[in-house]
Amino acid sequence: MSFRVGIVGCGTVGSGVVKLLTENGKLIERRIGKRVEIAFVSDLEPEKVVSLGVPKEKVYTDAFKAIEEVECDAVVELIGGTGVAKRVIEEALKRKKHVITANKALLADYGRELFTLAKENGVSLKFEASVGGGIPVIKALREGLVGNRIERIYGIINGTANFILTQMSQKGLSFEEALKLAQEKGYAEADPTLDVEGFDAAHKIAILSSLAFCRWVKTENVFVSGIRELTPLDIEIAREEFGYSVKLLAIAKETDGALEVRVHPTMIPEEHILSSVNGVFNACLIEGDFVGETLYYGKGAGQKPTASAVVSDIVDVAVGNEFCVPECLFNGDKLPIKEPDRFVSSFYLRFTAVDKPGVLAKIAHILGKYQISIKMALQKSIDFNGGVPVVMTTHPARKREIDLAVKEIDQLDVILKPTFVCMIEEL
Amino acid sequence: MSFRVGIVGCGTVGSGVVKLLTENGKLIERRIGKRVEIAFVSDLEPEKVVSLGVPKEKVYTDAFKAIEEVECDAVVELIGGTGVAKRVIEEALKRKKHVITANKALLADYGRELFTLAKENGVSLKFEASVGGGIPVIKALREGLVGNRIERIYGIINGTANFILTQMSQKGLSFEEALKLAQEKGYAEADPTLDVEGFDAAHKIAILSSLAFCRWVKTENVFVSGIRELTPLDIEIAREEFGYSVKLLAIAKETDGALEVRVHPTMIPEEHILSSVNGVFNACLIEGDFVGETLYYGKGAGQKPTASAVVSDIVDVAVGNEFCVPECLFNGDKLPIKEPDRFVSSFYLRFTAVDKPGVLAKIAHILGKYQISIKMALQKSIDFNGGVPVVMTTHPARKREIDLAVKEIDQLDVILKPTFVCMIEEL
Repeated sequence: MSFRVGIVGCGTVGSGVVKLLTENGKLIERRIGKRVEIAFVSDLEPEKVVSLGVPKEKVYTDAFKAIEEVECDAVVELIGGTGVAKRVIEEALKRKKHVITANKALLADYGRELFTLAKENGVSLKFEASVGGGIPVIKALREGLVGNRIERIYGIINGTANFILTQMSQKGLSFEEALKLAQEKGYAEADPTLDVEGFDAAHKIAILSSLAFCRWVKTENVFVSGIRELTPLDIEIAREEFGYSVKLLAIAKETDGALEVRVHPTMIPEEHILSSVNGVFNACLIEGDFVGETLYYGKGAGQKPTASAVVSDIVDVAVGNEFCVPECLFNGDKLPIKEPDRFVSSFYLRFTAVDKPGVLAKIAHILGKYQISIKMALQKSIDFNGGVPVVMTTHPARKREIDLAVKEIDQLDVILKPTFVCMIEEL
Repeated sequence: MSFRVGIVGCGTVGSGVVKLLTENGKLIERRIGKRVEIAFVSDLEPEKVVSLGVPKEKVYTDAFKAIEEVECDAVVELIGGTGVAKRVIEEALKRKKHVITANKALLADYGRELFTLAKENGVSLKFEASVGGGIPVIKALREGLVGNRIERIYGIINGTANFILTQMSQKGLSFEEALKLAQEKGYAEADPTLDVEGFDAAHKIAILSSLAFCRWVKTENVFVSGIRELTPLDIEIAREEFGYSVKLLAIAKETDGALEVRVHPTMIPEEHILSSVNGVFNACLIEGDFVGETLYYGKGAGQKPTASAVVSDIVDVAVGNEFCVPECLFNGDKLPIKEPDRFVSSFYLRFTAVDKPGVLAKIAHILGKYQISIKMALQKSIDFNGGVPVVMTTHPARKREIDLAVKEIDQLDVILKPTFVCMIEEL
C-alpha cells in the first residue's frame, strides 16, 4: 500500500523533500506501515531533478500536465510566490488531491479562499512548513492545544532578523555590519527587505493568529515595523540599564475584545526563556487558558528542517489526519482587528539631543502633556550622531499618544534626529 | 454530530478534563465541527463528580458497569497505577472503544501488550498527557518529526526535581530544604521517591524512546539515579568553575548500535537553552537528522495543563487522527539496550578528603590506573563534612572504569565520605 505524492518545485526545499523521502523512506514506511512514493516531480530544470535520483519518466516541466496525467494522492507545492503557485494549488484541490505547501505569503493573503476550496473538495490543505521551519508549531497550536482558548502568541519567527540582532547584541555590531555578515553566511538574501522589515514574520503571525483566534488574519491586518533603526547602543542600554533583550517579536493577543497582531523590535526581560533564543533559531511561545505557557524552538528555515515539516504533513494525510484549519474560520470574522493607535504598551524612547541643560525638561514636558508617565530616564555622556542619547522608558501608554508626543518632540530644535521608539513586553 | 467520551477516575486530572470540556466545549465544537460529549464519569466519590455539574444519571461508581452500559466512542482512563487502570483499559479496548490515558507507569511497563490489544481491536490508545503534562511532545515526536531519524532526546521531564534543583541553584538551599519547600508548595508528594529518585522521569523517557527508536523500552531498561546526593556546593562549583548548570536529565540516544536510556543529575553548559528551564517547567529537546535540534517547553504537570493534553487526544480521535505508535514497534526489538557499564561520558567527581598534602596525588594515581584522564582538578579550602572538597572533571571515560576507580578511591583512608559522581553532557 503506498501513498503517492507529486512535488511541484524542486528548489532548495523541494530537493530537501526528495532527499528526505529517499534517505528516510524505509524508516517512514516502518513507522506508518505505508510507503510514501514520489509520483512525479515538476521543475523547470528537469536535469537537476534527475540528478537527485528521480527516474526520468517521473520528471515533468509542466506542473499542470503532471497533475493531469499522473495518478497521485497529494500534491506538494514548493514554488513559492502568489502567482503560479496559487494556480497549482487550485488545480490540485479541484482534482481532489490533498495539498501540502510551505507558502506563507500565499496563505497569509489567500488563505480564506484556498481553504474554502479544499473544504468544498473534501481534501486537506496542510502547511506545517509555512511557519517555524522544522518546528511542528502549526500542529501544536491546531491539535496539541485544541482544547485551549489561546491567550497570546509571541514568536521569534524570522531567523535572519534574529541572527542580525544576536550579532548586534553579542558583538556590538551595527545593523549594517550584522546584515553584511548574515549575507556572507547565506542567512540573508541580497535584498533583505522581507526579513528585516518584518514582512516575512507578518505572513507567519497572520497564519498563526488565524488558527488561534478563529478569524482570518491577512498580512494587511498586521502592524509591522522592522529592525533597521535599532542601534547597538539601544541594545546595550536595554540590557545594562533595564535588563531587557531586544527581539523582532511577532505578537498576537486578544485585548479589549479585539485582536492585536503586530511585528516589531521588542524589549523583553533578559531572564525570560525567549531571550535565550539566539542566532538563526526560531521560537514560538503560545499561551492557552488551560495549558499555560508553552514554547516551541528549533531551526526556522533551511532545506532539511523545512523538508522535515513538509514530510510530516504528507504523513499526516497518508495516515488519515486531515484536520487542517478550525471550522469556525468559515463562519465569518467576529473578532475585530485592533487599530495600532489603540495598542497599549510600555515604551522605550531614545532621543538624539544636543548636550545642553534643559533638554530633559523639554522632552518631559511634552510627554506630560500627552499624559505619558515616565518610568526611568537617563542621559549618556557620549557622542551619538553628533549629540547625546537621552533614553526613557514609560509606564503603559497608548501608541497614539506616544506617536503624537514623539512627533512634537522631534520638532524641538534640541532634537537632532528622529526618535527611536521600541515597545516593551514584560511577558 | 457528537463524540462521546466516558471518563474513568475523577481526581485532579479527571476534574480538570470535566472542567475543560465544560468551559471550552463550545470553542472546541466551533473548531472541529463536532461536539465532545461526556457520556459518563466514573469515580468512587460520585458526589464530587455531581458537584462539577455532571448530571447524576451520567455518574457511575463502577467503571466496568459504565463501560458496559453506556454508549461511547472513547474511554479516558485517569485512575493511575497498574492495577484497576490496566483492566479498565483492556476492557474498553476489547469493546472497541478508543482509549486515552495519562498513565505513564502503566505504559512504560505494559505498553507492548496494551498497544497490541488496541491494534487487534482496530482502535487507538492515546497518551499525550503521559509525558510533559500540557506540552504536546508526544505529538511532536510521533507526528511532527515522523520523517526524521531521531538522534537524541534530552528531557527535563520531572517538575518536582527541577523545582528542587532550581531552588538549590538560585538560593543555595540544601536538597532537604528545597524538598521541604516543594512539599509546602504542593509540588512534591509526602513520599517524593518517584520524583527525586528519577523513576517518574524513567517512565516518561521509556515512553519517548519507544516512540523514537522503534523498540519497546521498559522502566527496567532505564539507568536511573536521583538527585539526593547532590549538594549546593556541587551546583556552585559546576557553575562558577566549569560553567555548567545541573539538571535531572532524561536521556535517550543511539550509540554504537545500541540504545542508551538514562535518568540522572547531569551537568550541562549554562548557556544552553535547557539551562533556562527553571522551576516546575519541563522541556524536551529532540534532535532529528533532518530537523536538527527542536525543543518543547511548558508546564509538565498540574490539573489544567494535563487536562489540555488529555483533551487534545480526545479531539485527535474525534477528528479521525488515530495514529498512536509507530507500526515498527510490533515487529520485534532489533536495537539492543546498552549496559550502563558501557556508557561513555565526561564525569564530575567530588571527593570528600582530609585536608593533607598528597591527597590529590593519591586520587590521581588511581584514576590513572584506570586510564581515566583528568581535565580539571581543584580543591576548596572550606570545611565540607569534616574534610575538604576535592573536585575533578574527566575527559570522556567509560562508566565502568569510573565506578571501579571511585570504589577504590573511596577505600583510601584520606577519603571521608562516598564520592559524588555526576555525568556531564556538552549538548
